Amino acid sequence: MFKRLLIANRGEIAVRIIRACQELGIETIAVYSDADKNALHVGLADYAIPIGPAEAQLSYLDATALVAVAKKAEADAIHPGYGFLSENADFARLVTDNGLVFIGPSADTIRQVGSKDAARTAMRQAGLPMAEGTGLLNTLEETIQAAEEIGYPVMVKPIDSGGGRGMAAAGSRNDLLAAVKQLKQAGMPYFLEKYISSARHIEVQIVADNYGHIVHLGERECSLQRRNQKILEEAPSSALTPAMRQKVGELAVLAAKSVHYSNIGTVEFLLDASGNFYFMEINPRIQVEHGITELITDIDLVKTQIVIAAGDALTLQQQDVLIKSHAIECRINAEDPDLDFLPCPGQIEFYHQPGGPNVRIDSGVCAGAEVPAYYDPLIAKIMVRGQTRGEAIKTMQRALHEFRISGIKTNIDFHKRILNNPLFRLGKIDIQFISKQMIS
Amino acid sequence: MFKRLLIANRGEIAVRIIRACQELGIETIAVYSDADKNALHVGLADYAIPIGPAEAQLSYLDATALVAVAKKAEADAIHPGYGFLSENADFARLVTDNGLVFIGPSADTIRQVGSKDAARTAMRQAGLPMAEGTGLLNTLEETIQAAEEIGYPVMVKPIDSGGGRGMAAAGSRNDLLAAVKQLKQAGMPYFLEKYISSARHIEVQIVADNYGHIVHLGERECSLQRRNQKILEEAPSSALTPAMRQKVGELAVLAAKSVHYSNIGTVEFLLDASGNFYFMEINPRIQVEHGITELITDIDLVKTQIVIAAGDALTLQQQDVLIKSHAIECRINAEDPDLDFLPCPGQIEFYHQPGGPNVRIDSGVCAGAEVPAYYDPLIAKIMVRGQTRGEAIKTMQRALHEFRISGIKTNIDFHKRILNNPLFRLGKIDIQFISKQMIS
Repeated sequence: MFKRLLIANRGEIAVRIIRACQELGIETIAVYSDADKNALHVGLADYAIPIGPAEAQLSYLDATALVAVAKKAEADAIHPGYGFLSENADFARLVTDNGLVFIGPSADTIRQVGSKDAARTAMRQAGLPMAEGTGLLNTLEETIQAAEEIGYPVMVKPIDSGGGRGMAAAGSRNDLLAAVKQLKQAGMPYFLEKYISSARHIEVQIVADNYGHIVHLGERECSLQRRNQKILEEAPSSALTPAMRQKVGELAVLAAKSVHYSNIGTVEFLLDASGNFYFMEINPRIQVEHGITELITDIDLVKTQIVIAAGDALTLQQQDVLIKSHAIECRINAEDPDLDFLPCPGQIEFYHQPGGPNVRIDSGVCAGAEVPAYYDPLIAKIMVRGQTRGEAIKTMQRALHEFRISGIKTNIDFHKRILNNPLFRLGKIDIQFISKQMIS
Repeated sequence: MFKRLLIANRGEIAVRIIRACQELGIETIAVYSDADKNALHVGLADYAIPIGPAEAQLSYLDATALVAVAKKAEADAIHPGYGFLSENADFARLVTDNGLVFIGPSADTIRQVGSKDAARTAMRQAGLPMAEGTGLLNTLEETIQAAEEIGYPVMVKPIDSGGGRGMAAAGSRNDLLAAVKQLKQAGMPYFLEKYISSARHIEVQIVADNYGHIVHLGERECSLQRRNQKILEEAPSSALTPAMRQKVGELAVLAAKSVHYSNIGTVEFLLDASGNFYFMEINPRIQVEHGITELITDIDLVKTQIVIAAGDALTLQQQDVLIKSHAIECRINAEDPDLDFLPCPGQIEFYHQPGGPNVRIDSGVCAGAEVPAYYDPLIAKIMVRGQTRGEAIKTMQRALHEFRISGIKTNIDFHKRILNNPLFRLGKIDIQFISKQMIS
């Protein structure tokens, strides 16, 4: 097992990784930018090393500096968390080239799944169901022709970007031209895909060791999104029958096998109103919403990442994964839902987290903390578990009621509104739910 | 189901009951003394009503005032929590005589189990194993004679008091005379019992509905006590074999049946070094340490109390109670272990609770809160769950490491020392562990 691990991240995921390391008996090295001097993760780690100014490009995204710091501090592994360098194949390569272990899949796998083009080709060959679509499109003419062959509406998608950035739906040629113009200006190569209407976002958690053994840990429903950013997630999805659950799980394992996946990852699908799944992408890292899978499977995904990267074989068998409860996560962001979700950085004055039965809080902040303007506005995740979806909703409602925070604005009331929405309570959600039902 | 419930308590157990009610859709009425105006439970309840000055005798112990407040506020039930009036048969009677539901066993049952004499008689008749002992002793002569017949050391126990108050071990006639003198001065009738050396405190959680159906939810090990006050509890006990677990569970159900028990309760036993159980007492209320049983059984005991009191039948069967994990609780008290655990009331300046996987916090305080000098110094309970005892210990260690509190002294470091103790880690504990191993 590793002796000392550097966490190339900040905020709640850095805290999460510190927790896993402490339970595994691994020393932790936190890194921090000038904006994070007093951050929670800095105080909790065994060591904390400054890595540069507030701008992420000069600190959390500085691959060379991070590896140098890790070597100097005699770390034997680096955990990238999510975001920042977590899906950067060059970083993974740099880490291993310097004799350290990268906690994640191989650089080759990260590169392959990071290119939508390469990933789609591999998945099509493996037999994954895909929405009708094109390869990389170069000219405006072939784009327009492809859109007409597929039929409007179409999705315009950047080839290389994750997290929904740059994606746009186009209902007409004019929409298409506008979307393509934006991508060209941003220098983002793109392709087209058929638009799946009333789709749900279903993603499957996979766990794979370095020796080819792969299991899935069921699905998460992440349809509640605003501008492709997830807001509230749950597991399992209320839309899936046991047969569908088994099918999408098998598809996810097939996808992972086809790219020789190791470590944990997520295979994302769209589910249409007729019950068809369409492969979207593989995220080769821990996800923000991993905790709800931990709650319903009782498997610690971050510890699993670390022990697998250290060479442990995965002893878990598919038939041992039993899911008998329901979990929900609300992402608490420092933002103002009344001002188009404008990020609201600032100093937290008062802060008191919910507690009690069936509530888990993963937070990156505490009272007095400064929420910097430079990074993701996520400050905490409330996760709850219930025997049923109805129970989980009630527990989340009382947890939101308990949360006390002042000094900054948050989306806590927005989450309360979601949980009170009759369609949400019936499980009648899709990826348009937030824009159609919640934002007037 | 009840519409509105009054909580005749304060602190973390009042918060716990509010949580259960919110999840059940029941409105809550908090009550508070002058010392608790700004307490957490006051802010979380739907209604909050002042009931008198800081002295508990004039507020939380004023049965008549509490019932009057409940009636005026149109509550249909009263939850007594633990401590205060929770084991007071007269209060239970007063509540029901006023047409409200008392969340707990009947007044008759509370009276019967509250008198050690009556309880011991009933339990002996039911066939429970008991330490050799006497009935009520009146004169010094018969006390000395009884002690010599039993053989020193003996335990001197008040007939009517719970929670270990007034209990004393006497190793000689001089010890005995001193203990008896104290009890006589306090006006506490007493009896003698054989002293069980190297004993462990094992208690069994029972659940009984109003129709005679009783199940047990396994045991808790509460041997870590200082002056008969529990400090750290765990479930299950590492001292029990499956056969012993089954036996003590059956004994607990037998004990409950023999007093026509309804609602939840705890049957306390001593376990000697040879594996013999001795009945101690029945606590007819929720216990401080109930949460660790909730963690390993996935059964919400406070919700269960309420629905049973409302007349629900218990559908749970004994064979459905499956215990596959391990839980530990550390009681965080406002006290100074370096000054003989002197209570340290005062204002909490900074407060940040642990979080992350497998950690549950039940707290009655937040930053800025005043810990009053008038009540129990318990401010929060950290509970953790692991697949094994070893995992639970690691998670508790990292949770204690995360806890940040300033402004008052606490026993957090004392808990860290317990968890580091090699004998504790081996499970080699008994009720002398704290005094012999931890307090020099």
